[in-house]
Amino acid sequence: MDIETSPLAQPFPNIPPIAGVTTRVARAGYKNWGRCDLTYVELTAGTSVAGVFTKSACCSSEVEIGRDNVKSGHARALVVNAGNSNAFTGYRGREAVEQIMAQVAGHLECPKEEVFVSSTGVIGVPLPKDKAEAGVAAALNAAPCSWEDAAATIGTTDTFNKGAMATAIIGGKTITLAGIVKGSGMIAPDMATMLGYIFTDAAVDPAFLQRCLSAANASTFNCITVDSDTSTSDTVLAFATGAAGNSALASYEDDGADAFASALQDVCRQLAHLVVRDGEGAQKFITVDVTGAQSDDSAQRIGLAIANSPLVKTAIAGEDANWGRVVMAVGKAGEPADRDKLSIGFGGVWAAKDGQPLADYDEAPVAQHLKGREIDIAVDLGIGPGRATVWTCDLTHGYISINADYRS
Amino acid sequence: MDIETSPLAQPFPNIPPIAGVTTRVARAGYKNWGRCDLTYVELTAGTSVAGVFTKSACCSSEVEIGRDNVKSGHARALVVNAGNSNAFTGYRGREAVEQIMAQVAGHLECPKEEVFVSSTGVIGVPLPKDKAEAGVAAALNAAPCSWEDAAATIGTTDTFNKGAMATAIIGGKTITLAGIVKGSGMIAPDMATMLGYIFTDAAVDPAFLQRCLSAANASTFNCITVDSDTSTSDTVLAFATGAAGNSALASYEDDGADAFASALQDVCRQLAHLVVRDGEGAQKFITVDVTGAQSDDSAQRIGLAIANSPLVKTAIAGEDANWGRVVMAVGKAGEPADRDKLSIGFGGVWAAKDGQPLADYDEAPVAQHLKGREIDIAVDLGIGPGRATVWTCDLTHGYISINADYRS
Repeated sequence: MDIETSPLAQPFPNIPPIAGVTTRVARAGYKNWGRCDLTYVELTAGTSVAGVFTKSACCSSEVEIGRDNVKSGHARALVVNAGNSNAFTGYRGREAVEQIMAQVAGHLECPKEEVFVSSTGVIGVPLPKDKAEAGVAAALNAAPCSWEDAAATIGTTDTFNKGAMATAIIGGKTITLAGIVKGSGMIAPDMATMLGYIFTDAAVDPAFLQRCLSAANASTFNCITVDSDTSTSDTVLAFATGAAGNSALASYEDDGADAFASALQDVCRQLAHLVVRDGEGAQKFITVDVTGAQSDDSAQRIGLAIANSPLVKTAIAGEDANWGRVVMAVGKAGEPADRDKLSIGFGGVWAAKDGQPLADYDEAPVAQHLKGREIDIAVDLGIGPGRATVWTCDLTHGYISINADYRS
Repeated sequence: MDIETSPLAQPFPNIPPIAGVTTRVARAGYKNWGRCDLTYVELTAGTSVAGVFTKSACCSSEVEIGRDNVKSGHARALVVNAGNSNAFTGYRGREAVEQIMAQVAGHLECPKEEVFVSSTGVIGVPLPKDKAEAGVAAALNAAPCSWEDAAATIGTTDTFNKGAMATAIIGGKTITLAGIVKGSGMIAPDMATMLGYIFTDAAVDPAFLQRCLSAANASTFNCITVDSDTSTSDTVLAFATGAAGNSALASYEDDGADAFASALQDVCRQLAHLVVRDGEGAQKFITVDVTGAQSDDSAQRIGLAIANSPLVKTAIAGEDANWGRVVMAVGKAGEPADRDKLSIGFGGVWAAKDGQPLADYDEAPVAQHLKGREIDIAVDLGIGPGRATVWTCDLTHGYISINADYRS
């Protein structure tokens, strides 16, 4: 099956090397798709790590083990397998992960708990241990590769390679953050719903790195949805090598901590948007701005009810300013709302205010806006100070074709 | 736009008249579709009524008023407008409903609170009062019509007419229940998500009728979903004329009360299934049986997470026994589950048991089962006594065509 590149794709940015980070790729052959499918990232001794993981009750062994080991705060390596998620594979799946951890730890002479493993692909097939072993051995001896090669290798149904970068100044030193991400379907927020990795040369205390990552995640990866389906393997890890030589950040009071936290959030937001831009079948990138809700959390839940509504998403696909479907989605969200205070707009034009269609509503600029690739939906609840922004894509024949017309 | 009759359609059953109930239809012209669009049902004096309504925070005036008036327990008439939902229309929408109630109450010389009104169709356009007045006047003078004519007239995007019947014996007297329903899109459970009306000649105390209807609703209309989108106008009303002459039922201890409650549940289940069979774009009718959950409520939430998952629904559309997507949906449901006790089957064949694919899993009978129109998915959590059954349809190109390719 040939899938065309998303019309919302963005070119891979020019990301510089991060001191203390080396990326390598190899071909383990998990799937017969004639490209590299194993990514190995080596991290200098002393690298801090933080992570956020899927809340799925049926998560993979990779997620279970990673969630435990991230607590120590130290990492030396990351291995990402593409083509097999190793989820729902019982003890055999767990053995494969532990084998990879031991193999890399032996090579680096580090505790195996400092080796992080992710896998993405088909559910229910144990990761073949022989292929994993040969793939890891090949990767350990491979030449270093570019960020784009690493981004391409962690991808599965992705139609373009996704990366982002940002910089910040900490105590006069410029530090750099680089991120790569994969994801296109089974994308719904309950953490991250994809695999994402962020690397920085900043020196950051693990606990503070976790605090910054959790905060950034809440307003970025947890505010996107493609199809409301939450993966069993979602993982975002942040690694800080400390090679930039700044004095290690340990709290928001430290000089440069705000700048670092902002830059991390910026990279997370960029990566999250790229996942939506590669949503299965996506033709339009939709921003839903919710204001006037009872609280920020309530605004986020209302935003996600809109962004997950098949009827709203198909209306946008059809370039139809069907604000009645937005009313429906607000109504079903289960959050405080007053029908007679609700206002809805598209592309900066209000279509309905205070619970009624506007008499002088000018549909022409809205129709023009809906023909574009970037769609803005505004919803004001009129009952409180809560606000949130969520991002999604439209629901098209392409989604059905990718997920129904071809067998797994 | 021509929409073909659902391949899952069932013929309209042979439903006898219900003593004390007269149905009439007329053309109000709410939409330019050249058919009757106003249904008027007259009920004999002394008729009991019960109702369940959408929980949408943005419900229509019809729902607000009906929810209040059903508390009195008495009904003399029902008016259903098709082609305009009158939702999100502020005070003008409310005035139109009150005008209809007053017009019919004047004709019947009854309190206007005993006239129930429902409307279905486009959101955000006030129901035109002149058309409503002329339509009601025409209906009051029209000849009585058949159940199928009434079912056809309440429909909007429905592709076939939907009705059901059942009988029960109460104290030696046979009583009859007749039901009609409309609904095809914007179907998700939070009550009923469509319009449904059930009429019986049994004598039933209003409070007990409400108790029976609420109980039946919980395991029927609240266990179906087409697209996870909850309508602003959903309503199910049950009317009991008492013309059968049984001694009125007032509690489950009364003779025949169990038989009546069973028959009511039977009609509700039949009507709920018909809505799924007319789900927008539906090609397959899917039954999800969840067992071994912590509680019945938990089982229902897990069942609905599966039934609402676009990835599960597209897998069934593609006739793909992709049980990994079922694992994903169980995992995202937010309910207690133990990955290593989870079992999943299709058409009576287990594909995975206790958290792992079955080594001797025979895919051939499953593949054959998935080619059919009636698909059974079984999920056993293995952790408790909770069970539930939910019903849905697959997600196909037809759904996208109906909702995206054409403008509202």
